[in-house]
Amino acid sequence: MGRQKFLLDKISRSFFIRNLLLRQGLAECLGTLILVMFGCGAVAQVVLSGGSHGMFLTVNFAFGFAATLGILVCGQVSGGHLNPAVTFSLCLLGREKWRKFPVYFAFQTLGAFLGAGIIFGLYFDAIWNLNKTELRVVGENATAGIFATYPSNHLTIVNGLFDQLIGTAALVVCVLAIVDPYNNPIPRGLEAFTVGFVVLVIGLSMGFNSGYAVNPARDLGPRIFTSIAGWGTEVYSAGRYWFLVPVFVPFLGAFFGTVVYQFMVGFHVEQESKRKEEDENLKLTNMASNA
Amino acid sequence: MGRQKFLLDKISRSFFIRNLLLRQGLAECLGTLILVMFGCGAVAQVVLSGGSHGMFLTVNFAFGFAATLGILVCGQVSGGHLNPAVTFSLCLLGREKWRKFPVYFAFQTLGAFLGAGIIFGLYFDAIWNLNKTELRVVGENATAGIFATYPSNHLTIVNGLFDQLIGTAALVVCVLAIVDPYNNPIPRGLEAFTVGFVVLVIGLSMGFNSGYAVNPARDLGPRIFTSIAGWGTEVYSAGRYWFLVPVFVPFLGAFFGTVVYQFMVGFHVEQESKRKEEDENLKLTNMASNA
Amino acid sequence: MGRQKFLLDKISRSFFIRNLLLRQGLAECLGTLILVMFGCGAVAQVVLSGGSHGMFLTVNFAFGFAATLGILVCGQVSGGHLNPAVTFSLCLLGREKWRKFPVYFAFQTLGAFLGAGIIFGLYFDAIWNLNKTELRVVGENATAGIFATYPSNHLTIVNGLFDQLIGTAALVVCVLAIVDPYNNPIPRGLEAFTVGFVVLVIGLSMGFNSGYAVNPARDLGPRIFTSIAGWGTEVYSAGRYWFLVPVFVPFLGAFFGTVVYQFMVGFHVEQESKRKEEDENLKLTNMASNA
Amino acid sequence: MGRQKFLLDKISRSFFIRNLLLRQGLAECLGTLILVMFGCGAVAQVVLSGGSHGMFLTVNFAFGFAATLGILVCGQVSGGHLNPAVTFSLCLLGREKWRKFPVYFAFQTLGAFLGAGIIFGLYFDAIWNLNKTELRVVGENATAGIFATYPSNHLTIVNGLFDQLIGTAALVVCVLAIVDPYNNPIPRGLEAFTVGFVVLVIGLSMGFNSGYAVNPARDLGPRIFTSIAGWGTEVYSAGRYWFLVPVFVPFLGAFFGTVVYQFMVGFHVEQESKRKEEDENLKLTNMASNA
Repeated sequence: MGRQKFLLDKISRSFFIRNLLLRQGLAECLGTLILVMFGCGAVAQVVLSGGSHGMFLTVNFAFGFAATLGILVCGQVSGGHLNPAVTFSLCLLGREKWRKFPVYFAFQTLGAFLGAGIIFGLYFDAIWNLNKTELRVVGENATAGIFATYPSNHLTIVNGLFDQLIGTAALVVCVLAIVDPYNNPIPRGLEAFTVGFVVLVIGLSMGFNSGYAVNPARDLGPRIFTSIAGWGTEVYSAGRYWFLVPVFVPFLGAFFGTVVYQFMVGFHVEQESKRKEEDENLKLTNMASNA
Repeated sequence: MGRQKFLLDKISRSFFIRNLLLRQGLAECLGTLILVMFGCGAVAQVVLSGGSHGMFLTVNFAFGFAATLGILVCGQVSGGHLNPAVTFSLCLLGREKWRKFPVYFAFQTLGAFLGAGIIFGLYFDAIWNLNKTELRVVGENATAGIFATYPSNHLTIVNGLFDQLIGTAALVVCVLAIVDPYNNPIPRGLEAFTVGFVVLVIGLSMGFNSGYAVNPARDLGPRIFTSIAGWGTEVYSAGRYWFLVPVFVPFLGAFFGTVVYQFMVGFHVEQESKRKEEDENLKLTNMASNA
Repeated sequence: MGRQKFLLDKISRSFFIRNLLLRQGLAECLGTLILVMFGCGAVAQVVLSGGSHGMFLTVNFAFGFAATLGILVCGQVSGGHLNPAVTFSLCLLGREKWRKFPVYFAFQTLGAFLGAGIIFGLYFDAIWNLNKTELRVVGENATAGIFATYPSNHLTIVNGLFDQLIGTAALVVCVLAIVDPYNNPIPRGLEAFTVGFVVLVIGLSMGFNSGYAVNPARDLGPRIFTSIAGWGTEVYSAGRYWFLVPVFVPFLGAFFGTVVYQFMVGFHVEQESKRKEEDENLKLTNMASNA
Repeated sequence: MGRQKFLLDKISRSFFIRNLLLRQGLAECLGTLILVMFGCGAVAQVVLSGGSHGMFLTVNFAFGFAATLGILVCGQVSGGHLNPAVTFSLCLLGREKWRKFPVYFAFQTLGAFLGAGIIFGLYFDAIWNLNKTELRVVGENATAGIFATYPSNHLTIVNGLFDQLIGTAALVVCVLAIVDPYNNPIPRGLEAFTVGFVVLVIGLSMGFNSGYAVNPARDLGPRIFTSIAGWGTEVYSAGRYWFLVPVFVPFLGAFFGTVVYQFMVGFHVEQESKRKEEDENLKLTNMASNA
């Protein structure tokens, strides 16, 4: 085995990427690929099997646990955001540098694009079995909804904006609580599982209007893939150019969620913790000067 | 980033609330908001989609994991009760001060009210799509049940009282075991997840009679919201003024559950632990006097 | 609050039970009560709602998580067996004293009896709503199956024996692995959750023949309750005196499971661990004699 | 109890297997037996009950949690691979010795064979109740699919190859991340649970084409069992000799998944960790030479 180890070590050294941001981008790419591959795979399974091999609940489970697994795979390297809205929120709070934002956004979108491509290949026969002659974006047996989100018929544009705003805000409030260094409510190492539960619960309760994208990369990457793979430009124009909503509104939602969490809980736990520290420093100083 | 940090720190200092009880109330408010937003959101998804985007099980999951997330968000600040009946039980055992009880009750109800409001906004189009001309409290396509609980037709008032009594007692027995400082059966930091399982299981087994409110704030807050938002006073009079049951009976259930847990397990683990301590102190004293 | 604490402490001292075995029995009673209350409650919810408020999966979840919660409530005091077959297996391996076995069996059965009684009360109206004039043991709208298990029509007695044998053996193999002091595969404090998963999985895969009792107390206690509460002696005679199978066969299964686990894994991890210790002791002796 | 302990210790010593690889093989056998017993048991429950006692989701849960339990039972002894493709991947990375591979493969297949046999016995009556006169491999009421996987009608052979390739690659990427000594994203002792989630998610999203074998032993063992137990050689010839795909392609998938994980994350965390160490050693050397 000596030779094998030597070879592996050599490969490892040769392919090591020196640029940290690139390594992080690559990790985010793989993490988001996993999120979209499993998540959209579950949608595909429900749609293509006509409900015999899944239901809306299985999609919720898949996106939730896919988020967990995606974060586990890349978290040590890149933090495991998998979502530009989460990156944005952490930049807002000064916990990540702003120059990370465009890089993460790009690599997350690329990962989502690749994840959609894998599912397209995996269910190639089944998709063409359902859509005999042409790939359909809307209507009966539409298959574009496997990859990107489209609004329900009952949804007006104002309600759609509110839907994505609230969905992302709810996500961000919970994620910020989970990763808050002053709040730390859960044992180290369980963050990924808890974020998975957040994604699951959002799907259980906010999925009926338009399929809870709440993530610009998760929606845009697969949508671009479908426009290339044969569904055409209708994927952009459908639902009165709905595709713009899950790309832009989640950032508004992330801002709103950050404000709500910080003003109702975050700033208070931070200040409390800092004041305790200051008090202790003061005591130490007093003790030192008295000595 | 130095300027951003400075600005954030300034905001954090300016908006810090000095009153601890107010900070705790605010945290309970956000926690209960999250519980009701996700929980009632899941009911909305089932009712409004006609079952295509969920079922009773998804409501159980949503309330369970929503309880987990609500506790995680506010637990470090306020203890994460999210339920006046739980606060009541902890006051009974002297683990919380009685003056917390009315404050927590008020803020929990406020949070539930706001959570219901968010879901009303999120599914505004879908609610009006189902209830074409007027918002209905009972009968076919009733939508009031999304927010507050109403009894099934088969339920008499006596059985309804027993239902809420047992449901809350079961909740309190399990919660007391989970947070008992002398019993501590689970690793620190997993309390929120375990309470989520309790809420889930109560929904799986005690949800058919009247929808397992077992929480005065979770039921009253959204009910007040619906009475204002357009469903009218029928939300109070429906089911022979059912709304009084989930407001008052859970406290009886909490008392009953506290008694059962303490007499069957709690007092014994406490005494055992204290007696061990006393024995050790005695030994130390003996050793010291022998020395 | 001083007075309240004083009062609570006085009550705690007065009602403390000095006999350890009685305290343990009481704890097992509460634990099994919780198991049966939530588990049979979930069956009741499915049967009485005609499937609108649950399905077989929700019963599986409920029994699984109910086992978890039952163990959490009583585990620190009594070990949280909740099942005479598990007590039997631990006695076989010398980890519990044999005189515990009859006491635990009695209290577990009592707890199951009480849990069934609570569910009977909770769903009293719904049961009489379904069984208009008399409580039915078998056939359409039978309600006895809410509390105790009955064999499917396709099941012969030989296959039924094998069913309970394998079910209990599978349970015991997994439980022994989880609590094996030489194997310890999971972090301390997660045993209850893992046993819950075992019960869940048994229900998912071995529940179709006769409803996976795999626990003499869980089946006998509720069955005695139903025979008293109005279903009559048919609960014993139904399915060619099926009730004897889940009372006696699980002990055979526990024996078989103990043998399989110990011979395939248990004895080996034990010996390995002991031999390592001996080697180290030997080394220390050699070092000492060389010194 | 002294005599009982003495007897147990004597048995334990007598039956101890001195050969480590054999002990590990035996443990893998029991682990894979548990995986297949619970997993295929869940398929049996769905197929034989005609959907009343389960659905595709319950099969996904069962395989997921069965993987968890299988790993827990044997993990301390053998590592808990339960899958020759996982063993292959770990050999590729030099973390297991190549001579383990054939031994593990054989014992895993044997365990899967035995697990299928147990389920055949457990549901003997139910199987013959559905397949009145002869055991059917394909078509209506086919029961061979309980044990081994068969392709859907829509699936071409090329797509089938891609299906197993991607499924196993996805499994291996996630498993490698979970057990990577340089990445270690989760608390020790939770690996088995996380692998269970991976298996669950693969079933939720990649199960529609051919039932996500992604494991040569899990598919081949039960298939051999069915060919002997009465389904005949059609279990091999069905689906244009489909059985070869889940036996051979998972190894390709494992290779592909290993490459993807190592090049996108694994090698980078390894190098980073090593370089940090080297830097620290360098500093220490410098400090020493300066001293």
